[in-house]
Amino acid sequence: LAIITLTTDFGLQDHFVGTLKGVILGIAPGTAIVDISHAVPAFDIVDGALTVASAYKYFPDGSVHVVVVDPGVGSARRPLVARIGTHYFVGPDNGVLTAIGGGEMRHLTSREYFLPGVSKTFHARDIFAPVAAHLAKGVDMPALGPEISDCVRLEIPKAKLDGSVWRGVVLKVDRFGNVITNIGPQDVPALFHSHGAAFQMVLGGREINKIFSSYSSGAAGEVFAIAGSMGYLEVAANQGSAAEILNVGKGDEFTLTLPERPPRKVIRV
Amino acid sequence: LAIITLTTDFGLQDHFVGTLKGVILGIAPGTAIVDISHAVPAFDIVDGALTVASAYKYFPDGSVHVVVVDPGVGSARRPLVARIGTHYFVGPDNGVLTAIGGGEMRHLTSREYFLPGVSKTFHARDIFAPVAAHLAKGVDMPALGPEISDCVRLEIPKAKLDGSVWRGVVLKVDRFGNVITNIGPQDVPALFHSHGAAFQMVLGGREINKIFSSYSSGAAGEVFAIAGSMGYLEVAANQGSAAEILNVGKGDEFTLTLPERPPRKVIRV
Amino acid sequence: LAIITLTTDFGLQDHFVGTLKGVILGIAPGTAIVDISHAVPAFDIVDGALTVASAYKYFPDGSVHVVVVDPGVGSARRPLVARIGTHYFVGPDNGVLTAIGGGEMRHLTSREYFLPGVSKTFHARDIFAPVAAHLAKGVDMPALGPEISDCVRLEIPKAKLDGSVWRGVVLKVDRFGNVITNIGPQDVPALFHSHGAAFQMVLGGREINKIFSSYSSGAAGEVFAIAGSMGYLEVAANQGSAAEILNVGKGDEFTLTLPERPPRKVIRV
Repeated sequence: LAIITLTTDFGLQDHFVGTLKGVILGIAPGTAIVDISHAVPAFDIVDGALTVASAYKYFPDGSVHVVVVDPGVGSARRPLVARIGTHYFVGPDNGVLTAIGGGEMRHLTSREYFLPGVSKTFHARDIFAPVAAHLAKGVDMPALGPEISDCVRLEIPKAKLDGSVWRGVVLKVDRFGNVITNIGPQDVPALFHSHGAAFQMVLGGREINKIFSSYSSGAAGEVFAIAGSMGYLEVAANQGSAAEILNVGKGDEFTLTLPERPPRKVIRV
Repeated sequence: LAIITLTTDFGLQDHFVGTLKGVILGIAPGTAIVDISHAVPAFDIVDGALTVASAYKYFPDGSVHVVVVDPGVGSARRPLVARIGTHYFVGPDNGVLTAIGGGEMRHLTSREYFLPGVSKTFHARDIFAPVAAHLAKGVDMPALGPEISDCVRLEIPKAKLDGSVWRGVVLKVDRFGNVITNIGPQDVPALFHSHGAAFQMVLGGREINKIFSSYSSGAAGEVFAIAGSMGYLEVAANQGSAAEILNVGKGDEFTLTLPERPPRKVIRV
Repeated sequence: LAIITLTTDFGLQDHFVGTLKGVILGIAPGTAIVDISHAVPAFDIVDGALTVASAYKYFPDGSVHVVVVDPGVGSARRPLVARIGTHYFVGPDNGVLTAIGGGEMRHLTSREYFLPGVSKTFHARDIFAPVAAHLAKGVDMPALGPEISDCVRLEIPKAKLDGSVWRGVVLKVDRFGNVITNIGPQDVPALFHSHGAAFQMVLGGREINKIFSSYSSGAAGEVFAIAGSMGYLEVAANQGSAAEILNVGKGDEFTLTLPERPPRKVIRV
């Protein structure tokens, strides 16, 4: 029971996504096709990687993930397939796959797995969807093209420790107005443990120094930190939009400072 | 051939909905997963109930409906499963299930049907989706937890008869600008019969006294009542937005008066 | 492994699309249901036809396409089924099917393939979805109703040659801001060949005279023509919105002139 997921910047207003699904079902009937999101901002490679990275591990081993944020479609940029852990990914060689994780990468060169008459305008339809469908049907990665090691590398921007101050950026704002930062458990483990930690964060000109464990914590209008479901520290507000309260958005910078003395008690709910 | 539907306030721009589907397909491969809507306004429990209530009866018996509008995620509010008629529902104990209808309610306590390591931030992923998948695979309701009778009760707001005047509110405005009221067939049966009835409705400062049976009735810009597909009286305009014409929206109040004398002839198309 | 696609102007915020899928799965369990788009502008018959026309050929033979843009729902307009090539289409008799292409057309009259108690407000649920499900299950077209030849005819507006000048209109603007014109390969074959052609187009008060073969061509802010994936000449900009740059939208007019002398060399990437 094969699964193919789709993550793109195509939106849902045009025929694009439907067309991809037609191609897949033509090659691999019975495949379960799942939309991760098609609302990646146009051409935003990092956001596309971030979106699929948050979801793919919840799919069964062997799932195939099509990730198409492809400003270079039709140019010389290569089409790729990657195996990251137990999952397969297909997408353009612009960093969107390497930002998800490391693994075996191959250049898609076997045209028998493409649609005939590949266009220069719609590789998702002509290359990525058909290759994903063939993978879902059991074609082995090596048949798709040669392994490569020189693909474009991109990373989700990492927070940096500058003396005793973490400097980070807002990765995105989600549908609820939660502000997703780029502080992860590898950066400040204490903030992701169940015991929390003392900290001082400055974002949007405002100090945040409370961390709660659920979105339903905090008073009305109160902004607090929380270890979110995307694997990053978030800034949230109970039934409110932290992004609106703080007037911040993607790319905005923040600082986060931890006390040098042993942590004091923090409020947990 | 199991079916799971999803109704949430998650939107489609993030990874949330895709993640739920991965969880379901990991537990119950081959399940047909259907989105009812993910555009429920954030935290709007009544709207979530209203949305799934309009759709679920069109699904086969035994379908499982995940309904997650959950401002209290991570708090002490309980996760529930309900059997309403021949359908199963899973969602939080905040009234979103009781507003759909009455039936057997159970507190989800059997953690073996949850994902391991339940978070406090994403119960749809960690509890509701996996439980729905196990239900779809045939797990019996009693195995999921004890029956309860003290769950939070919520109802779609009902219109009230005040002397000879019905006082109601706008439940929502649909994509076409049709204004869905909370007058149902149990309130004013005559308006839902094929013969119509005389009435006078005041909404947005305007009097409405015509009822038609199809949206394609009425002159350009004319606003009229119609028995809509959500089971409520609606106010509509032929190829126009009644909500814009009347400048009304969700929560706005209206009155509806029926004549005390026998009904006069009304225009029907 | 039956496939049913859906193209509507229903949007995704209400219960409508979920309800259709429930009806289909109740009649034809196991059918793969694919959304082409539900963001057709309300009541825009031509846009609905254009959307499904761009996608349907990528689906396997025998797929059933539900196309519901139906301002006349509940009126005397007939419900139809069409066979266009190897595909089936169901939708209202308002031109939305004839704009896709020609073929056998039948009036849906066999009420045993409808839901019981057809409403006047939601024929997609009561007629089109159930008929599509029965078609997907193998019911033959003749069983659905009599063949007709007097259905409403509508065409995607065609560009017209006026002396030596093509006069056309913008059919739509896609999610990326690409401007889809109504110049097709049958109009100006040279623009769709791999060698391109010299031309002068005037759109939004600006002259466009370059044609590239990929969206990633051109300098920043440069607007150029391209043979797009919908089968029409488009106007695009590299990682920018041509529609915004030119301040044009659907329905705007343009002219396109070809040189009378033999084509000079054009830039191709």
